[in-house]
Amino acid sequence: MDNSKKAWKLINGGIAVPKGFYATGVQAGIKYKDKYDVALIFSEVQAQAAGVYTRNLVKAHPLYLTQRHLENGLARAIVINSGNANACVGEFGDQAAFAMAEVAGTFLAVPPEDVLVASTGVIGVEMPLDKVLNGIRVASSLLLNDVVKGIRGQKEEADEGAHRAALAIMTTDTLVKEYAYELSCSQGGVIHLGAIAKGSGMIHPNMGTMLGFLTTDAFLPSEELQRILREAVEESFNMVTVDGDTSTNDMVILMANGASGITLSGEDRSNFEEMVKSMCIELAKDIARDGEGATKLMEVSVSGAKTKEDARKIARSICGSSLVKAALFGEDANWGRILTAAGYSGAEFNPNKVDVFLGKLIVAQAGKGVTFSEEEAKEILGLREVHISLNLHSGEEQATAWGCDLTHEYVTINGSYRT
Amino acid sequence: MDNSKKAWKLINGGIAVPKGFYATGVQAGIKYKDKYDVALIFSEVQAQAAGVYTRNLVKAHPLYLTQRHLENGLARAIVINSGNANACVGEFGDQAAFAMAEVAGTFLAVPPEDVLVASTGVIGVEMPLDKVLNGIRVASSLLLNDVVKGIRGQKEEADEGAHRAALAIMTTDTLVKEYAYELSCSQGGVIHLGAIAKGSGMIHPNMGTMLGFLTTDAFLPSEELQRILREAVEESFNMVTVDGDTSTNDMVILMANGASGITLSGEDRSNFEEMVKSMCIELAKDIARDGEGATKLMEVSVSGAKTKEDARKIARSICGSSLVKAALFGEDANWGRILTAAGYSGAEFNPNKVDVFLGKLIVAQAGKGVTFSEEEAKEILGLREVHISLNLHSGEEQATAWGCDLTHEYVTINGSYRT
Repeated sequence: MDNSKKAWKLINGGIAVPKGFYATGVQAGIKYKDKYDVALIFSEVQAQAAGVYTRNLVKAHPLYLTQRHLENGLARAIVINSGNANACVGEFGDQAAFAMAEVAGTFLAVPPEDVLVASTGVIGVEMPLDKVLNGIRVASSLLLNDVVKGIRGQKEEADEGAHRAALAIMTTDTLVKEYAYELSCSQGGVIHLGAIAKGSGMIHPNMGTMLGFLTTDAFLPSEELQRILREAVEESFNMVTVDGDTSTNDMVILMANGASGITLSGEDRSNFEEMVKSMCIELAKDIARDGEGATKLMEVSVSGAKTKEDARKIARSICGSSLVKAALFGEDANWGRILTAAGYSGAEFNPNKVDVFLGKLIVAQAGKGVTFSEEEAKEILGLREVHISLNLHSGEEQATAWGCDLTHEYVTINGSYRT
Repeated sequence: MDNSKKAWKLINGGIAVPKGFYATGVQAGIKYKDKYDVALIFSEVQAQAAGVYTRNLVKAHPLYLTQRHLENGLARAIVINSGNANACVGEFGDQAAFAMAEVAGTFLAVPPEDVLVASTGVIGVEMPLDKVLNGIRVASSLLLNDVVKGIRGQKEEADEGAHRAALAIMTTDTLVKEYAYELSCSQGGVIHLGAIAKGSGMIHPNMGTMLGFLTTDAFLPSEELQRILREAVEESFNMVTVDGDTSTNDMVILMANGASGITLSGEDRSNFEEMVKSMCIELAKDIARDGEGATKLMEVSVSGAKTKEDARKIARSICGSSLVKAALFGEDANWGRILTAAGYSGAEFNPNKVDVFLGKLIVAQAGKGVTFSEEEAKEILGLREVHISLNLHSGEEQATAWGCDLTHEYVTINGSYRT
């Protein structure tokens, strides 16, 4: 990412970089041996918190619990497991989600209502609760050891734990998704933003579970956090999903514990908002790049739209088109499929005005193919990041969406995920 | 198909079985040598006609022409080419479509306004018009020779030509899709319905071009035909597409020339309506079965819905889910993905009431997994036709949709379609 003009900079570390935050991951053996699968994120002090959840009508059990526990806008910890989605298993699922919060609360000495819960993995199978709870117990004591180190001024050593948390939330992910930013405030002092995410089932993106967790040591009231997070999600994670639809388990949480002693206002607050959005976009791009079996990141920018929603619909429709994705894999400059996907997106535009570009190469002008160098097109499509852009020449609005190519590997992965 | 309780029966032949209809196909070399790629369908007498077109905002050039030529509800001939979609090529495309109608009209001695035009193939590339028009000339004389045979009482010999028409509209299809039905009327006499179709790009179904042509020797006014065709399409071809969205070129045409001397009324008319719907469903299932790279037909039935639209949305959402399709390919009884696809379909229902069946095997009850025999599930998923059904227990409405599995072969086909 180009951070050159930004008020913040990328620094080492992840979710536990902000002051007062700790995180760890353990191997609980939920689905696989030797795979980190239980993560804990913990704030030494009470934090303001906000959450954005899946719009799927079918919601996993932990989502109900987390929504309930976040009603007061406060949280101390998040416990997450991979390997089992804890979805569609009836009352057992609600009980399991609560047990996870309760055990984490007990071992971290915070009320269970201050613990949020997230899960990802196979749907419709009861989780091996004993293993999960054991994992939480072990994780709690590892984490408390890190807190002790932190108190002794050796918090950096705790970073390794935070990295294990990033590993523990992965399922079919092949890339670890963790970042930390540092923002120098105009009022003096610095604040931090840390984040981890998981997600990779992106071919028909509304089904790949996406989890994102963000922490900051700035202070903002939860209502503000909620607005900032929702707007950031709208421009990032929701732009790797079709129609804003999502899996049963999707969740993004932002916690702000104020441990920096800085309450954001004015320019600092708007910089913070931009920083959160930028972080979410970085994670969203990583998720697209890490699409199951994917070899390429596709970025689709639509400009000149009459409304923002039209631009969003078209960008997502193109990213979600299996034919575009397969053509990208085959490095075939099939722009007709791009225009077709725009055409059925539900957006309004005049097809006879649309220009289509692959990278900087124009391939269609005013809705009609132009002669272009196949060689140049092939070269552009051969890159690891392929930029497709459309100018609708119908207005001023624009939007960007991200996706990936559709490959043989995707079929292999998803033909045998459950068993 | 089980025709046992129907008033009509399946008979040999296809589009030219109804009296007064002729059809043929030729190899014009549009994209490949040795591939039939220009088809003609012709009625000896003026026919009432109806058309249903793609809802894609980006429409191929021949669609505008056909809509215009059908404004008076009358037609004599349809000319179709495969190998080039004649879409998104600007004015040339409109001129090419008109030239196709004009040449067919000239050689068949009918006004060009009575000729309908359809195309399928690659988008955004100008068609080799000379080859196409030459093909139409050759096809016209072959067809007129068949008309002569017909007048001499040897119409059966013309069936071979009709079969070539079915071949000529195919692109990546691997199955020829042609059927003929015969209906004995309660008022005495018989009428016939013939049909051909093409379509196979079905993974994200709204992009695979689908063409369907139906002929009958019954008489019905074009307004009636239009209503009957629209209703039939709604329950058939539109149930192999997501959200009713379609490619730039989709078109279904029904012509009724009255050559049987029978004007339909009462019971015969309702039987005719059922017969048209049944024909469209048979063709739609063939299209799903012939999905690019597909090895299985998936039939999804949703019952107990509050509204018909809810049932339709859920059935199509499941058929369109890449994760369900990949699981089907892998023969993995991943019913969680089925419920997830229902959840984001946009339909309203209570997830905690839903039963899910693979064939007759219940795999989830009241939204929750039940213990089932993996072996039995594997056996069901191993069949060439897999039936998935959901009972929502929320109302009385139901709908059925069709799809196919997602395979390695699909990726191969669509990674290199254009080049």
